[in-house]
Amino acid sequence: MFKLFFSPGTVALASHITLAETGADYEAIRVDFAAGEQMKPDYLAINPKGRVPSLITDQGILTETPAILLYLAQSYPEANLAPLSDVFQLARLQSFTSYLCSTVHVNHAHRRRGSRWATEETSFEDMRRKVTENMADCFALIQTEMFEGPWVMGNDYSVADPYLFTVGRWLEGDDVDIKDYPKIAEHSARMTERPAVQRALAEQAG
Amino acid sequence: MFKLFFSPGTVALASHITLAETGADYEAIRVDFAAGEQMKPDYLAINPKGRVPSLITDQGILTETPAILLYLAQSYPEANLAPLSDVFQLARLQSFTSYLCSTVHVNHAHRRRGSRWATEETSFEDMRRKVTENMADCFALIQTEMFEGPWVMGNDYSVADPYLFTVGRWLEGDDVDIKDYPKIAEHSARMTERPAVQRALAEQAG
Repeated sequence: MFKLFFSPGTVALASHITLAETGADYEAIRVDFAAGEQMKPDYLAINPKGRVPSLITDQGILTETPAILLYLAQSYPEANLAPLSDVFQLARLQSFTSYLCSTVHVNHAHRRRGSRWATEETSFEDMRRKVTENMADCFALIQTEMFEGPWVMGNDYSVADPYLFTVGRWLEGDDVDIKDYPKIAEHSARMTERPAVQRALAEQAG
Repeated sequence: MFKLFFSPGTVALASHITLAETGADYEAIRVDFAAGEQMKPDYLAINPKGRVPSLITDQGILTETPAILLYLAQSYPEANLAPLSDVFQLARLQSFTSYLCSTVHVNHAHRRRGSRWATEETSFEDMRRKVTENMADCFALIQTEMFEGPWVMGNDYSVADPYLFTVGRWLEGDDVDIKDYPKIAEHSARMTERPAVQRALAEQAG
């Protein structure tokens, strides 16, 4: 039995969908960001970084989306969530998830989390103004250079897909129209047809 | 024969050391950042993100440090660079490399790369002022919560080690004294004794 700590609207959705895809038993536990629960001792004992997702497994706690995604794919090989038998293709998948976490997620975070990197309100405003351009650049690059179609890696669905879907849901709030990237918009629509996506979204809304 | 594109002082050193650890044939090719070579068409054809490292393999090009590190570890299992047969331990390794790329590297980048996320000189100055505190917080967390010793993952050297070593070399420029984190300082000294580290540093200096 896994326990996944999440907050709605965050990157934890990618791990949540992937858990649902594996067919494993899990419990999804909401961390109340509005109440600052992620910085309280009970949660910091689980994840001293004060972030989501955190995944409690029988062997210990895991954090960081790319790590959780590969862990689930390797733990449930029958779910076919990654090209586990092809070292180069797995590296391509990892290159994609790494780009999302180190560049795209970080660009998005400058809209509301400027206080991580600066102190002045004027700096936060300056950062917010650049988010739309940065996210648009990222999604242009993803569509042109990375996205194979119909899934991120080509014909086979993988953990890269819920991760892209999750980050793509931030575009509207970042004033980027996903329709400017038709392949990504179609991918997002395709994702919402999957039972695992519907289940995770329902659990996060409930 | 691999080709690794690097620039001295960047995160490419982690992949460079790992290549040397594998014993594989490789050529290390310097990208002249001072001349803006990373944004010129020849290099953008290799890596449209305009960053280093890029690794040219027989099967195609790989970018993003965590992806390259796991690729090399999986391609050269006899080099024992990752706990490949233990899914949970591999996930812990991935959690560490993901934290370095998505949080620690990003915090460091706000010292000189503020123009990625803002426009005004006042914002860049504001960002620079927070880098020391952020990097100090990260290394405190790494020493307290993540670093097992004598290597990152415990008794076995892994690709997490050259990555930590590489990011740790940025501390001095970020006005953080590595000696405030004795386990990390000792790790850095231990790393410099490895022939692969000496080879990579010599090739980057040459």
